Amino acid sequence: MELVGNILYGQSGGPSPVINSSAYGVIDEARKNNKIIKNIYCCHHGVEGILKDDLIDLSNTPREQLNLLPHTPGAAFGSIRFKLSKPEEYKQILKVFKKHNIRYFFYNGGNDSMDTCNKISKFLQKEGYDCKVIGIPKTIDNDLPMTDHTPGYASAAKFIANMIAEAAYDALAYKKGRVIVFEIMGRNAGWLAAASKLACLTGFGPDLIYLPEKPFSMDKFRADVLKVYSRKHKCIVIASEGIKYADKHYVAERKALDSFGHKQMGGVASMLTENFTNMGIDTRAIEFSLLQRSATHLSSKVDVDEAVEVGRTAVKIALEGKTNFMVTINRVSTNPYKSSFGHCKLSEVANVEKVVPDYMINDEGNNVTRAFIDYALPLIEGENTSIYKNGLVQLAKIRL
Amino acid sequence: MELVGNILYGQSGGPSPVINSSAYGVIDEARKNNKIIKNIYCCHHGVEGILKDDLIDLSNTPREQLNLLPHTPGAAFGSIRFKLSKPEEYKQILKVFKKHNIRYFFYNGGNDSMDTCNKISKFLQKEGYDCKVIGIPKTIDNDLPMTDHTPGYASAAKFIANMIAEAAYDALAYKKGRVIVFEIMGRNAGWLAAASKLACLTGFGPDLIYLPEKPFSMDKFRADVLKVYSRKHKCIVIASEGIKYADKHYVAERKALDSFGHKQMGGVASMLTENFTNMGIDTRAIEFSLLQRSATHLSSKVDVDEAVEVGRTAVKIALEGKTNFMVTINRVSTNPYKSSFGHCKLSEVANVEKVVPDYMINDEGNNVTRAFIDYALPLIEGENTSIYKNGLVQLAKIRL
Repeated sequence: MELVGNILYGQSGGPSPVINSSAYGVIDEARKNNKIIKNIYCCHHGVEGILKDDLIDLSNTPREQLNLLPHTPGAAFGSIRFKLSKPEEYKQILKVFKKHNIRYFFYNGGNDSMDTCNKISKFLQKEGYDCKVIGIPKTIDNDLPMTDHTPGYASAAKFIANMIAEAAYDALAYKKGRVIVFEIMGRNAGWLAAASKLACLTGFGPDLIYLPEKPFSMDKFRADVLKVYSRKHKCIVIASEGIKYADKHYVAERKALDSFGHKQMGGVASMLTENFTNMGIDTRAIEFSLLQRSATHLSSKVDVDEAVEVGRTAVKIALEGKTNFMVTINRVSTNPYKSSFGHCKLSEVANVEKVVPDYMINDEGNNVTRAFIDYALPLIEGENTSIYKNGLVQLAKIRL
Repeated sequence: MELVGNILYGQSGGPSPVINSSAYGVIDEARKNNKIIKNIYCCHHGVEGILKDDLIDLSNTPREQLNLLPHTPGAAFGSIRFKLSKPEEYKQILKVFKKHNIRYFFYNGGNDSMDTCNKISKFLQKEGYDCKVIGIPKTIDNDLPMTDHTPGYASAAKFIANMIAEAAYDALAYKKGRVIVFEIMGRNAGWLAAASKLACLTGFGPDLIYLPEKPFSMDKFRADVLKVYSRKHKCIVIASEGIKYADKHYVAERKALDSFGHKQMGGVASMLTENFTNMGIDTRAIEFSLLQRSATHLSSKVDVDEAVEVGRTAVKIALEGKTNFMVTINRVSTNPYKSSFGHCKLSEVANVEKVVPDYMINDEGNNVTRAFIDYALPLIEGENTSIYKNGLVQLAKIRL
């Protein structure tokens, strides 16, 4: 018995260069199944859009706008960081689902969002409301378990690797010595900082890479940098924003907590360069900040294609009657790179963080190994060239 | 009578995304004239390479490497910031020129470099050493007079405009209010910060733009931002690193001077955001830093083509017997955009800074006008797509 009704798709958590590619996959696949799926709705700002009954009807969105989604960063339908906590919230969600006859719900996000998705799914089941709920993975942090990697990671990695190769080349222009520290996102997982290593394959990349996975020592760091500097008169350092001392305290800890209670970070790069300014060494602290997650103009084609496919797969398995799963990407082979798409239980993903494994980090804890390169390199293959008009990227304008 | 001999090409001042495109133009044009021009040398690190007799012989550089130059940031042959001051230095230059029979000298740089070039030219003339000396303009700052614009400006402008469009889109993901301040290079000329305005043509750009050309007031700034914020719950601000108070003091002044005696700047963005943190408004300070001048992967085709042509023109006019000139770009028409190449006296350029004219800045001094857009937009046209291998940019490896 096919479950006929409407679908709802929502975006949640930090933006990524390819979350809108997954949106494209969901919408395009849903449109193909218009005998079962009637209206296609999006949440305006994730669960908040459901709670406020603020849904975007995509039925009449022009194809031209949809086609821009795989070239659009951010979260085209608005995102949210919101932890469901009150029973009324769940009841309100059910009410809105019933009102719009939502029978398929797709929630696109990271660990926290998969937890939200799992909770909504369980509540709807308990209430006996038939709705297929599927999580779609997304995070530049690449820290979701059960999937080889997450959509968004490779594009952020590609921007980081290429931009650092170009900046490292720039740094060679002058004979003058210099220590440059790049600060890369990653609270507890160093996947993004590790990606800077790929720049070395161009001949121009970082000398030292510090990840949150290994205890950080300021003394060891200083010695590492000076060792490189004395040989090359230059040193390019990459630091995850989330590097931690052995006592588990973040090197750059701020007092504010985000709405999930996570500590906020920032300023690691300038803290680290301070070690050398009083030695008379010229330094630069460069934070990639929002740029690393919004540079869709340099997104990876492998990543974009997979993000679209992950969206399609969510619709396909929901139509098969599956529910309470997250779509996963499985690596079939690395050389040549080939992936397939599967699924796992939402409960296996919710709130679990996958960090960079030991064998991808060198013994000294100041670089990554060949195993990391072999893992990450195939993911950044191919350029998902932006659609330019008068030299400017064209971005989807659906609701924003 | 043709002057038969060798040529020397040098790079000077801050790197730009297209200085190596001009190098390509010089080298390729010189190779075409191999009856007159015998060897092609480059200075290793500008005038320092001459003083130390450290020249790079490009005669056997493979074509494949030369072809990478228009896709390579930085300064492929090394740059320098160096002010000639001692008589012995000039004598040493003459000695090295004689030793290598340098009869054509091309120096590629900004204001300071054109001054150096002018001085070398005058000295050689005074000593009766026949050598044609031509300056090739280069600076992302766009602050050279006598030329419609400078090679390098448009590519940095293109990266800034597109990256800000993408980041501005990203900023809309959350409903949560936020003030983002982007800090853009530009000590006394706001051309690069102004370029952020082009992002608005995508639908997603800055709300306020502050340039060094107009006196800055912190009170007015705070009021400007809060006015936008109260309406949009977001505010995207662009600030030149060189914004100055009415008393001519830089807002973010550091004590150190560079080797030309210019004050060094940095940290404007974080200074400006501090206005709002105690109001409980979420802020982000983002410095484009080295990224804006090294992002060759997003360079403008118009810019790259012109940079090559400026290099070729330098060789052509030198072979015509001209000396002591800088190549200029003249705008023939704006719509459709068309340029031609001329030349002016080096002395007219040396140490003169061209700033953004009044009619391109709004009366309030917090934005730019349509006249600026009309000027800048045609320059960022076309994409000079990088040559990628395994998803990574390929960069020239000639000496670095």
